[in-house]
Amino acid sequence: LPGPSATVSDLSEAELISRIQRQLPPRPDWVLVGIGDDAAVVEPARNRLEVLTVDAIVEGVHFDRAFTPPSAIGHRALAVNLSDLAAMGAEPRLALLSLALPSALPCTDFDAMIEGLQALALRHRVHVVGGNLTRSPGPLVLDITVTGTVKRRQILIRGGARPGDVIYVTGSIGSAAAGLQMLRAATAGPPAMSRTGTEYEACTRRYLFPEPRIRMGLQLSRNRAASSCMDLSDGLADAVAQVAAASGVGAAIDADALPIDPDARAWFAAHAADAVTAAITGGDDYELLFTTRAKWTRRVTNAARTSGTTITKIGVCTAEAGVKILRSSSEGVMPRGFKHFA
Amino acid sequence: LPGPSATVSDLSEAELISRIQRQLPPRPDWVLVGIGDDAAVVEPARNRLEVLTVDAIVEGVHFDRAFTPPSAIGHRALAVNLSDLAAMGAEPRLALLSLALPSALPCTDFDAMIEGLQALALRHRVHVVGGNLTRSPGPLVLDITVTGTVKRRQILIRGGARPGDVIYVTGSIGSAAAGLQMLRAATAGPPAMSRTGTEYEACTRRYLFPEPRIRMGLQLSRNRAASSCMDLSDGLADAVAQVAAASGVGAAIDADALPIDPDARAWFAAHAADAVTAAITGGDDYELLFTTRAKWTRRVTNAARTSGTTITKIGVCTAEAGVKILRSSSEGVMPRGFKHFA
Repeated sequence: LPGPSATVSDLSEAELISRIQRQLPPRPDWVLVGIGDDAAVVEPARNRLEVLTVDAIVEGVHFDRAFTPPSAIGHRALAVNLSDLAAMGAEPRLALLSLALPSALPCTDFDAMIEGLQALALRHRVHVVGGNLTRSPGPLVLDITVTGTVKRRQILIRGGARPGDVIYVTGSIGSAAAGLQMLRAATAGPPAMSRTGTEYEACTRRYLFPEPRIRMGLQLSRNRAASSCMDLSDGLADAVAQVAAASGVGAAIDADALPIDPDARAWFAAHAADAVTAAITGGDDYELLFTTRAKWTRRVTNAARTSGTTITKIGVCTAEAGVKILRSSSEGVMPRGFKHFA
Repeated sequence: LPGPSATVSDLSEAELISRIQRQLPPRPDWVLVGIGDDAAVVEPARNRLEVLTVDAIVEGVHFDRAFTPPSAIGHRALAVNLSDLAAMGAEPRLALLSLALPSALPCTDFDAMIEGLQALALRHRVHVVGGNLTRSPGPLVLDITVTGTVKRRQILIRGGARPGDVIYVTGSIGSAAAGLQMLRAATAGPPAMSRTGTEYEACTRRYLFPEPRIRMGLQLSRNRAASSCMDLSDGLADAVAQVAAASGVGAAIDADALPIDPDARAWFAAHAADAVTAAITGGDDYELLFTTRAKWTRRVTNAARTSGTTITKIGVCTAEAGVKILRSSSEGVMPRGFKHFA
C-alpha cells in the first residue's frame, strides 16, 4: 500500500481506477458494461430523450487548490454539470470522468476528490460508468460528461421566452462570488483571519459546494411551468442576456428585487463594492433563471413548493431588444457576465 | 474579423463556438437541441444499446505541438475515441468536445484543429452535438466524449476469451511508434532532414492520422466473430495482457508472426532497437486485437473481407495464466505496454 505521502505518480493507472471503483455503489441493472472495458454500454431509458453535457474545471481558472479542498473540487466538477441538466429539466443518469492529474497530486487528495464527487453523485442517483485518467504536465483538470433523461414535451430550453413573460430566479445570488473573495482574502491575509467564521461559513460553503437545482428543474419541466430556463454558471447578467438573445426578446430587470444574499451584501458593502453589480456579474451561483407566461403563475408556485425552492420575480421580458436594469428609479444597461476568453 | 496573428484570447467564447458551428453539417433529425443551450438533447436509437467513452489528449503527454500539426491534433483526439467504439463493435453516433485552450493558441490553429476533427467525424457520420470551451493556463487539452450504438447480442468485450481461442490483430503494428520517433528526430535534427521523405511518409502519417478500425469492429460484431476485442491504444503487449486478465486466460504470442510494418522494422534496425519489443510496446497504433473460437474462422474471414481489413493470426489463448512470447524458438515473458502513471 502506498504511504501517507504517496502521490498519484506512485500508482499505476489500474490502481487509480480501482481506488475510484471501490467508492462506487453496485452497478444499476441498466449498466451492461461499466468501468474496465474500452467503453461503457448502457440501456437507454424507455420513452425518454437523452440529455448530454460536458463541463471542465481547470486549476488556476475555475479553482485554486490553495483554498479549495479536494472534496470541493470533486463536488464542483460534478455540480456544474448537474446544474446544466437542471436547466434542461432533465433527471440525471450517468457520468463519465476524465481527469488530468499532476504527478505531484497526493493520493489522499485524489481519494478525497473522488469522495466529494461521489457523495453528490449518490444524492442525485448519478452512476459513474467510465472515464479516463491521464497525467497532466500542468494544471489539475476535471472534465465530466453527464447524461440525463427528459420527456419530449418537457424539455426546458433557452429560446422560448416571449415579450410579457415574467422572469424568475431561484434561491439567492452573490454568495458564491462573496465566498470566493472571502477565501482569497483569508488565504492572502494573516492566519488569524479565520475562514470558518460564522459570517463566512455560508458564503464560502456556497462557493465550495454549490447545490445544483435538480429538483426545481424537474418540477418546472413536469409542470410545464417555464417558457425558458438556464443556469447561472456565468452570473445572472449573462444568463438574462443569453435567454433574451436565444428567445429574440429584451428584458427589464428590477435591481431592487434581486435576491442578493444578505451576508454577501454585507461583505460587498464592507469592501466598497456595489452589491448589485457584484451579485449579477459574479459566477458560480448555479441557481436557475427561468421565464414563465403570466397565466402559468400557479404552475410556478407549485413547482417551487413541491421542490422546496425559494423563487423571486426579478423582471419581465420586453418586445424591445436589449437588457435593461431598473434601479431605484434610475435605468441603465446591464453589465454582462464574465467571459472566459474576453 | 480577427487578423492573421489573432489568438483565441482575442475572441469571445461565443465567437469560438460559432467558428466550430460553421464547420458542422446540418443537424440530423434525431438531434433535438444541439450546440448553444445548457445541454444537448437527442433521441436514443431504437432497439440499440448505447456505448459511451471519453478520452483526453494532453499537450506534452500525448502530442507535441512542435511536430503535430493542428489538423492532426484534432484528428487524433477524435480517433482515439472512435477506436474505443470500434473495439466494442459499436456504430459511432455523436461527440461532445471539451477543449482547454492556451491563450496564445492562434485562431488559425484552432480552426485547423476543428477541421481535422470534423473531417474524421464526417467520414464516420459522428455528429458534434455540444461541448465546452475553457482557457488553459498550461497545456492544450482536448477531451472528447463519443457515443455509439450496438445491438444487445453483438457487444464486443474484453472478457470473453477462452483457452484455445485464436488471437488476431488487424493491420500492422510499430509504424506509429516509428513515426513518432521519426518526427522527433526530424524536429531535433538539422533542417535538411526532411520529415516528408517517402520512407518516412507512411509511418509519420500513421502516427499523425490514425484510422480507427470502425468498419472491422462493426463486422466482427455483426458476424459475432470475436470472443473478445480491444484496441491497441497502449500497445499490443498491453492489450494482450488486458484481454487475458479480463478473460481469466493466459496467452502465447508468436513473435515471428507479428505484422510489424516493414518501414518501421527498417527504422528500428537502423536505430539499434529491437523491432519486436519496439512494435509491441509502442502505443498509438489503434489496431484491434481480438480473439475467436477455432470454429468461427469463416466468420472472421468474412468480417475481414467485408470491411477490407488485413488480419494476422498472432497467437493462442492458454489455460495457464500469464502471457508468453515465443520468438524464433526461444520463449520469454512479454514486456508490458507503457503505463501512464508508472
